[in-house]
Amino acid sequence: MSNVLSGHPRMLRQSIRKGKFIRSTGGLHLGKVQANLVMLPASEALEFLIFCFRNPKPCPVIEVVEAGSFEPIVSAPGADLRTDIPKYLVYENGKLVTETTDITKYSNQQMVSFLLGCSYTFEYALLNAGIPIRHIEQNTIVPMYVTSIDTKPTHNLYGPLVVTMRPIPKRQLEKTIQITSQYPSVHGSPVHVDNFQDIGIKNLSKPDFGDPVEIKKDEIPVFWACGITPQIVAQTSKPPLMITHSPGHMFVTDLDNDKLLVDESILINRLED
Amino acid sequence: MSNVLSGHPRMLRQSIRKGKFIRSTGGLHLGKVQANLVMLPASEALEFLIFCFRNPKPCPVIEVVEAGSFEPIVSAPGADLRTDIPKYLVYENGKLVTETTDITKYSNQQMVSFLLGCSYTFEYALLNAGIPIRHIEQNTIVPMYVTSIDTKPTHNLYGPLVVTMRPIPKRQLEKTIQITSQYPSVHGSPVHVDNFQDIGIKNLSKPDFGDPVEIKKDEIPVFWACGITPQIVAQTSKPPLMITHSPGHMFVTDLDNDKLLVDESILINRLED
Repeated sequence: MSNVLSGHPRMLRQSIRKGKFIRSTGGLHLGKVQANLVMLPASEALEFLIFCFRNPKPCPVIEVVEAGSFEPIVSAPGADLRTDIPKYLVYENGKLVTETTDITKYSNQQMVSFLLGCSYTFEYALLNAGIPIRHIEQNTIVPMYVTSIDTKPTHNLYGPLVVTMRPIPKRQLEKTIQITSQYPSVHGSPVHVDNFQDIGIKNLSKPDFGDPVEIKKDEIPVFWACGITPQIVAQTSKPPLMITHSPGHMFVTDLDNDKLLVDESILINRLED
Repeated sequence: MSNVLSGHPRMLRQSIRKGKFIRSTGGLHLGKVQANLVMLPASEALEFLIFCFRNPKPCPVIEVVEAGSFEPIVSAPGADLRTDIPKYLVYENGKLVTETTDITKYSNQQMVSFLLGCSYTFEYALLNAGIPIRHIEQNTIVPMYVTSIDTKPTHNLYGPLVVTMRPIPKRQLEKTIQITSQYPSVHGSPVHVDNFQDIGIKNLSKPDFGDPVEIKKDEIPVFWACGITPQIVAQTSKPPLMITHSPGHMFVTDLDNDKLLVDESILINRLED
């Protein structure tokens, strides 16, 4: 397995495709961009893309794959989004119907695929800068909270912003904000710092998703827009079919995290330039 | 008329709406963002938005107005995109059928409206920095050229990149690139500098659109992606209906040009934050 994890991400994706790797991609290929997946019927895709455009912090679009193809030619040429993710969630009419390792049976559907940025990228940058990430230290899933902040709606897509929280040492707050600001395509700068009640969170030790983390005396909670938001929001319109990755089981791309630095490409969609 | 031109852009738009102002918006409200318009049926809009996402330099999206509304609530609340532009072009099945001042008769169509950034914004910034703009000095229309550079296609949308050209004094080239790089949502940095044959232009004195300009001895031609590109590309798919502004007759928004500075909002679609 070690060659799969240390080699080119293509090897990991092929292993996933063969059903030989069915677990979280957290901690794998740390220098590479991992992405959230949202697949929707073409009929629902325009509104979702407008929603992403209006809400770039929770929904930073890295690549759109048109109906008729499942190959993300910019971020992972040769990959197949129907097979190369360890686990998928399938929603029908807004309800979760199954968790599965292979969605090729939906191949004949006119599905548009969206790859959205994931905070693994900025966590990697924070760690490299000597800023600790508690849930990584604890080996748990980042705590997520549904807030009282509304996303910018479209006609049928609306709902609350979901945030992740990381406790940050006060003396490293400025550096943390600076670093994550440089990654607008993976949620970017924090949406809120400190007083959690102000954004409708009642109890930090009871996250809506993920696991609680310890907050030490010299630390304050810092909140970023979360990639769960688009999945929850997309369900408000109850699309006939929606497929996403299963949380933690991300799509591992060929892109280097540094490629998402604002200095490298002011807009992520300039990657192709 | 002077109060219309010196007051709030809303006054100009109302004057346009009443049919009292039917000419180019060039030189008006210099501090405000002016925008290109592309309106397409909802059925064609997803592919166009994906095309814009893949080609942000020629197609920098400032706002998307969903079908069912013609009010750009972010960039000009209260405005009506069917009446507040001095002149429109109407294409049917890819062919220009009319130039008109009012498109309310298409109100019952399910049209999605796209406002795209326009180089007036960065020209204003260049002028403020003491960099001359030849076609403004000459009071002519910027020269535009169809290049040999292909845009990044979608299934049905493809075509060559169109560029504008401005002769820039060599000693001010670096400054020019710096300034326009700071405005990614209005075409951003140049796509090419100097050797025009390299991008398939045969004769600088014979632009495909607009007027030729003099290039002085100490100057070199600098090329930027042009807002005409999406109109030309959209015609490749021959949509049943496409409505655009008439060149030079732009939509004048309420947004300050400075709002489009990368420092102000790394992504233009963060304007709403």
